[in-house]
Amino acid sequence: MQKSDTPVPYQTLLSRSREIALLNTAASTLGWDQDTYMPVKAEPYRADHLAYLRTWSHRLATVPEIDDLLKACEDYGFPHESKEGANVREWRRDYNRRVKLPPQLVEDFERTSSLARAAWTVAREKSDFEIFREYLKKLVRLARDKAEYWGYDECMYDALLAEFEPGMRTAEVRQLFAELRPVIANISQSAIGNTSGLSRESLRGKYPISAQQAFNTKVAEAIGFNFEAGRVDMTAHPFSTSLGPQDCRLTTRYNELDFTVSLYALLHEAGHGLYEQGLPSEDYGTPTGEPASLGIHESQSRLWENKVGRTIEFWEYWLPIARSYFPDLQRFSPEMVAAALNHISPSFIRLEADEVTYDLHIILRFELELRLIEGDLSVDDIPAAWNEEFQKLFGMVVPDDAHGCLQDVHWSLGSFGYFPTYTLGNLNSAQLFAKACQNCGDVYAKISEGDYTPLLVWLRKNVHAYGRRFLPQDLMQVATGESTQTRYQIDYLWKKVSRFLAPAGATY
Amino acid sequence: MQKSDTPVPYQTLLSRSREIALLNTAASTLGWDQDTYMPVKAEPYRADHLAYLRTWSHRLATVPEIDDLLKACEDYGFPHESKEGANVREWRRDYNRRVKLPPQLVEDFERTSSLARAAWTVAREKSDFEIFREYLKKLVRLARDKAEYWGYDECMYDALLAEFEPGMRTAEVRQLFAELRPVIANISQSAIGNTSGLSRESLRGKYPISAQQAFNTKVAEAIGFNFEAGRVDMTAHPFSTSLGPQDCRLTTRYNELDFTVSLYALLHEAGHGLYEQGLPSEDYGTPTGEPASLGIHESQSRLWENKVGRTIEFWEYWLPIARSYFPDLQRFSPEMVAAALNHISPSFIRLEADEVTYDLHIILRFELELRLIEGDLSVDDIPAAWNEEFQKLFGMVVPDDAHGCLQDVHWSLGSFGYFPTYTLGNLNSAQLFAKACQNCGDVYAKISEGDYTPLLVWLRKNVHAYGRRFLPQDLMQVATGESTQTRYQIDYLWKKVSRFLAPAGATY
Repeated sequence: MQKSDTPVPYQTLLSRSREIALLNTAASTLGWDQDTYMPVKAEPYRADHLAYLRTWSHRLATVPEIDDLLKACEDYGFPHESKEGANVREWRRDYNRRVKLPPQLVEDFERTSSLARAAWTVAREKSDFEIFREYLKKLVRLARDKAEYWGYDECMYDALLAEFEPGMRTAEVRQLFAELRPVIANISQSAIGNTSGLSRESLRGKYPISAQQAFNTKVAEAIGFNFEAGRVDMTAHPFSTSLGPQDCRLTTRYNELDFTVSLYALLHEAGHGLYEQGLPSEDYGTPTGEPASLGIHESQSRLWENKVGRTIEFWEYWLPIARSYFPDLQRFSPEMVAAALNHISPSFIRLEADEVTYDLHIILRFELELRLIEGDLSVDDIPAAWNEEFQKLFGMVVPDDAHGCLQDVHWSLGSFGYFPTYTLGNLNSAQLFAKACQNCGDVYAKISEGDYTPLLVWLRKNVHAYGRRFLPQDLMQVATGESTQTRYQIDYLWKKVSRFLAPAGATY
Repeated sequence: MQKSDTPVPYQTLLSRSREIALLNTAASTLGWDQDTYMPVKAEPYRADHLAYLRTWSHRLATVPEIDDLLKACEDYGFPHESKEGANVREWRRDYNRRVKLPPQLVEDFERTSSLARAAWTVAREKSDFEIFREYLKKLVRLARDKAEYWGYDECMYDALLAEFEPGMRTAEVRQLFAELRPVIANISQSAIGNTSGLSRESLRGKYPISAQQAFNTKVAEAIGFNFEAGRVDMTAHPFSTSLGPQDCRLTTRYNELDFTVSLYALLHEAGHGLYEQGLPSEDYGTPTGEPASLGIHESQSRLWENKVGRTIEFWEYWLPIARSYFPDLQRFSPEMVAAALNHISPSFIRLEADEVTYDLHIILRFELELRLIEGDLSVDDIPAAWNEEFQKLFGMVVPDDAHGCLQDVHWSLGSFGYFPTYTLGNLNSAQLFAKACQNCGDVYAKISEGDYTPLLVWLRKNVHAYGRRFLPQDLMQVATGESTQTRYQIDYLWKKVSRFLAPAGATY
C-alpha cells in the first residue's frame, strides 16, 4: 500500500510523526556534540537548547488531535501484519504512555533525575551512598508513580520494563534469569583456574592511538559499517547515536597500552550502528523505521563484539593485519589473543566483566531494582543488600560502594527496568547467531576469511529491515522461530569455555 | 533597569526572542556539524532538519502578535540610549524586514539560491558562465523584488545593503570606495618590484599538521581566545560560528608545506571568535547580545589577522617559539617573515590577494553588483564587464571566468550587498586599531612582548560589550569619535608598505 493510497488521518499522522522525528534528531545532534566536542562553558546553554527541543517535541506528540487521528486509523482497520497496522499500533502505545503521565510528574522526574545524576557523580567519587540516598528514594517514588499512571496487570515493574522492552513481562525475565543463574555459576566455576592463564593484561604493549584508529576503521569497514553514512569519534564513555537514517555516530575511547579497549568498544558500538544503518531509510520518522527495543539493539552490539569479535576465527584473519599496525603482537597466535580476550575473571565492576560472569551483574541489579519498585526493599538497605547478594553470586566481598551499588549511572537517571535488557541482548544475540549459522552455511569459516557478508545479510533481512514492525518477542519468533530462550547462550558459553580450557601442562 | 521592572510586553518579547534564538542556535549547531563532521549520505536529511528549524523560527518571528507587543513597547517609550530602547528598535527593524516579504518570495528565493549554488559549483569547475547565467538572472530579479518589498529612499541597493550593514547607505559606500581606489593603485604601484622580493612562497617548508595545530592553539590562546568557550576544527573553507554565548567554533584548513595558510585563517576566525566571546552572555537571545553588523564583525577578524598578525612585532615574539615547532623557520628573521607575509602581488583570485590589493577586488564586485541591481548591467554582460573592469584595476587580463566572475560563492546565494562589508571591515579595523593605539599606550611594544591584553580590553569595552546596541556607524562614532573613514586604512597601508620597501641592494 502506497502512502498516497492511505486514508487522510494516516497521512496526517505520518507527517506529524516525521515532524517529531526531525525535532528529536536535531536534539540528538546537539546531544552528540555535547558528548564529543562541545566546550565546557557551553554546558548550561546547551541544556536549555535540549530542554526546549525536547519539550516542544513532547508537546507535539501529546496534542489531543493525535488521539482522534489514531481512532480514525483504528476504525479504518489496517491489516494487523501491514506496515500501516504496525505504525498505528506503535503510535498508539507511544501516545498512551505519554499522555497518561501528568506533566507535573514528567517535570518532577526530569528535575529530580538531573539533580540525582549530579549527586550520584559525587557519591561515587567519594564512595558515599549517603550523598545519593535521598535522591534515589525520590526517584523510586516517582518511578512507582509513573508505573501507577501507566498501569499494569501483574506487577508494577512490568510498567517500567515496557518502556525499554515493550511486551515483555517481569515474570518472563525472572524465568529466563532463574534458568541462567546456576548455569553461569557452573560455567565460571569450571573455567576459573582451568584456562590458559592468559589474561587480558597479557596483551598489553605499545599501541599508538593513530594506529588503533586506522586498524579499528579497517575492522569496522570489514564488518559492514558504512563510513559514508556514519563516523567514529572519541569520548570518555563510548556510545552510538543516529542523527538521521544515513548518519550513525559511533564513539570509542583509547588506551595506548591496550588496543582491545578501543577495538571492542568500537565493535560493540558498530554492532549498534549496523542495526541503525540497516533500518529502512524510507520509513524514517515512523515506528517501522526505528529499532525494536533495547534488548534487540543490544543483541546486535553483543553479537559483533562477542559472538564474532572474540572468536579464534576472527583473529585468524585479523592478527596478521593487526601485526602490521602493532608490532607488539608478533609474539601472539590467534588462539592466544582469543584466549586472553575470553579470560574469565570475576570483577566488582560490571563494565570490566568477562562475557561469562557479565550476566550475574545484571541479575543482581534486576533483583534489587525489582524489590525496590515492588516495595520489598528500602533504599536505605540497598548497600547491605547489594553486598550480600554480590557475595552469594561472586563469592567476593565488596570493598566499598563505589565498587558496589554506586558504580552504575542508570538508577541516578531513574531508568528502572533498563538493566535486564543487557542480558536479554546477550540471550538474543546467541539465539540469532545460532539461527544465522543454521541458515547461512559455515559462518565461522567465513569469519576466518574476514567475510561477514552472509551474516550481515541475514541480520539485515531478519532483524534490521523490520524496525518496530513487530514487538521484540514477536520479532524473535519471526527471526528464529521462538521467543527468547536461554539455551543458545548457555550452549555458546559452554562451548567457548571448553575451547579455551588449557590442556594439562600447556603453556603459551 | 532590571528585566523584572520592565513592562509585560517587553518581557514577553524577551522570552519570544530567546525562544527564536534557541531555535537558531540549534540550527547553527546542525550547520556547524554539516560543515565539519557530517557523513556525506546524511546531506539530504540534514537539509530537511535545517529547513524545518529555520521555517519554524521564521514563523515564530513573524506572528502578528509581535507587532502588537512592539507597538506597546514603542508607546511605553524606553529611553533611546537604553538597552531596552535598543532592543525594541532592533526587534522592530528585524520584524518589519521579515514581514514585508511575502512567504512565496522567501520560498522562491531559498529554492532558487539552493539550485543556483549547485549550478555555480559546476559552472566554476568548468569555468562556464552559461551554466550559471539563468540562475543568476533569476536571483537578481528576486533580489530586486525583495528590495521593492523592503522599500528604500535613494536606490534599490540600499535595501539590500541594509541586510548586512544596517543604516549604511550606498552613497556612503561609493564615497568611501571612491577615496580608496586611486590610493590603493598608488600604493601597490610604488610597492611592486620595490619590496624585499621575499614572497609568501619563500616561507615554504615542512610543517607537520600536528605541529601547526599545537602552534596555532598557543597563538589563539595568547590573543585571548578562550578554549573553554570555543574550539577549532578543520574544514575546506574556514568559517566561525557561535552555538551559544559560550560556544564559539572556529575552523581552519592546513597545508603541510605552508603553515601560514592555517595560521592566518585561524587568526582571522579567532578575531571573529573574540568578538563573539566578548558579547554580553546575559543578553543572549536579544539584539544587544548579538554582533552589530558584518562590517563590524569583519573589522575584528581583519584587525587580528592583519593589523596585529602581519607585523614585525608579532613575529619578534612568536618566531623563536615557532622555530621550536617548525625547524624550517631557522633561516628567517622576524623582519623576513613579516616581509614575506606582506608581499604585494596582484592576483586574479580574491582569496589569494595581499592586504593592499584586496580591496580592489571588493570595489570591482561592488560596482558590478550595484549596476546589476540598479538595472544598469545585464547578467549576460557580466563576464565581459568583469574582465574589462579587472584589467582597469589590476592591469591584468583575466584568463577565464573561473579566475573571474565565477570565483565567489556570494552571488549564487543571492547575497547582493554583502561584498562591501569586507572593505568596510578593513576600514573599520584600521580606524579602531588607530584609536586603540591612541588610548592604550604603545600597542606595538606590547605586541612584541606577546601581550595583547590592553588591545583586547579596549575592544571588549568599546566594541564587543555593546552588541547591537548601536547601529554600526553609531558604534564607530562611540568607539572612535567618527563614522567610518578611509584615512586610517590609507595611513596604515602607506606606513606598512614603506616599512617593507627594500633598501637599495638589500638581500636577505
